[in-house]
Amino acid sequence: MKGFSLNQATTKRWPLDDLVAGCAAAGVEAVGLWREEVAEYGTDKAAALVRDAGLTVSSLCRGGFFHDPGWYDENRRAIDQAATLGTDTLVLVSGGLPDGSRDIDGARRQVGEAIGRLVPDAQAAGVRLAIEPLHPMFCSDRCVVATLDQALDLASPYPASVVGVVIDTYHLWWDDRVWDGIARAGREGRLASFQLADWITPLPSGVLLGRGLPGTGSVDMRRFARAVRETGFDGHVEVEVFHEDVWSRPGPEVLAEAIAGYEEAVA
Amino acid sequence: MKGFSLNQATTKRWPLDDLVAGCAAAGVEAVGLWREEVAEYGTDKAAALVRDAGLTVSSLCRGGFFHDPGWYDENRRAIDQAATLGTDTLVLVSGGLPDGSRDIDGARRQVGEAIGRLVPDAQAAGVRLAIEPLHPMFCSDRCVVATLDQALDLASPYPASVVGVVIDTYHLWWDDRVWDGIARAGREGRLASFQLADWITPLPSGVLLGRGLPGTGSVDMRRFARAVRETGFDGHVEVEVFHEDVWSRPGPEVLAEAIAGYEEAVA
Repeated sequence: MKGFSLNQATTKRWPLDDLVAGCAAAGVEAVGLWREEVAEYGTDKAAALVRDAGLTVSSLCRGGFFHDPGWYDENRRAIDQAATLGTDTLVLVSGGLPDGSRDIDGARRQVGEAIGRLVPDAQAAGVRLAIEPLHPMFCSDRCVVATLDQALDLASPYPASVVGVVIDTYHLWWDDRVWDGIARAGREGRLASFQLADWITPLPSGVLLGRGLPGTGSVDMRRFARAVRETGFDGHVEVEVFHEDVWSRPGPEVLAEAIAGYEEAVA
Repeated sequence: MKGFSLNQATTKRWPLDDLVAGCAAAGVEAVGLWREEVAEYGTDKAAALVRDAGLTVSSLCRGGFFHDPGWYDENRRAIDQAATLGTDTLVLVSGGLPDGSRDIDGARRQVGEAIGRLVPDAQAAGVRLAIEPLHPMFCSDRCVVATLDQALDLASPYPASVVGVVIDTYHLWWDDRVWDGIARAGREGRLASFQLADWITPLPSGVLLGRGLPGTGSVDMRRFARAVRETGFDGHVEVEVFHEDVWSRPGPEVLAEAIAGYEEAVA
């Protein structure tokens, strides 16, 4: 595996200039970026900033939300943005159930069809679509893809070079089938991104901003790192945490803790 | 399937006397009760109250929490209480990870061992232990048993007449494997309890009190009812909802809506 990457969402309020300078100063090789923040800064300008600092972009978050009107054009723009940033990995969060629907199988089928429609665009741009299974608590409103097996099944009709999957410890730690799933992702050449975040309770209202830095919660990070390493995964390991308490702290301090958590996990 | 049963947790602030009278007046045949509320009322007195009103007790919630000190004695008391109430079903919620532990496999093994230790007591009392898989968002702090397959695997060493499983739509609706799991539960004769609650968002802080009455959320209740009916399940269908907004309303009003949601589901 390559080394640590800071996902920008972990230090949401650290301006991109400072974040990139801080990462370079800390010897970090890569960052994971988010579309909105990059667009606000200017995509070309962000690409130059990162490149000039000697960093690479490990992933761009995120495309997906395939039940939104205009999803196709939006995802094509996301693919272009990823290509401009020089990352080969566009993370896809599928979106939840369409409004008023209870047809979860149908929603999952639609996700598969949408991904298929994007495959030629992704292939042409040299960008890989990385399907991220989210924790089942997000199934209705954010992501109907709730397990690694589902993500792999959705990816399976398409070339592994174009459609892969994301392993995020926060979303998958509870699943006793995840270890077989990681091995399967390795065999099928689908492992596109590996992200660390810890599970802490109590969950906050809305549950989105409840993640902990690696080492602060219930997840056996070392077991995940071992399983992913055994697949031959050769990407960076991103730390991606969303939490108001983490966001309110200085970027360099959070970065240092994220690196320490990563090191403990992969040691 | 037998008919509707009101789980007491749905109308948490409805005093037991009134709840039983209200159910009898509404033609309801059964109620699901909770240990604390029953103990406070007096277990013998509660048993007489329910019996005299012509109701049966469809289940008692709950035993489990197998990592707590004193779990064995507490669960034996729960078994005795179930027997006194004349219900054959004691719902078990396993408890989460032991304090400071990240060994989820180990925690699940311990649950299996604890259930094994309770089997002779349950058998002697004529009470069935019903393992309830909870939604994976409760995995760390409330229940390491997160899928129906896990519950069935944990039950499998023991006679189906003594150890069964609970199907609660709220906890299982996101799982694409649940339909095979329900059929398996039927084949193995393990289906001990069937509970309805709907999934609504946003989830509240702590996530425990976020359930909706059947029909108000994302769950395809009719698909669940059909799948459970096809197993030949002959128990009652409990509506079990925890939500502050539901609790704050008059019991009879909530009961009427719970019955309407049940009828829509099983129609």
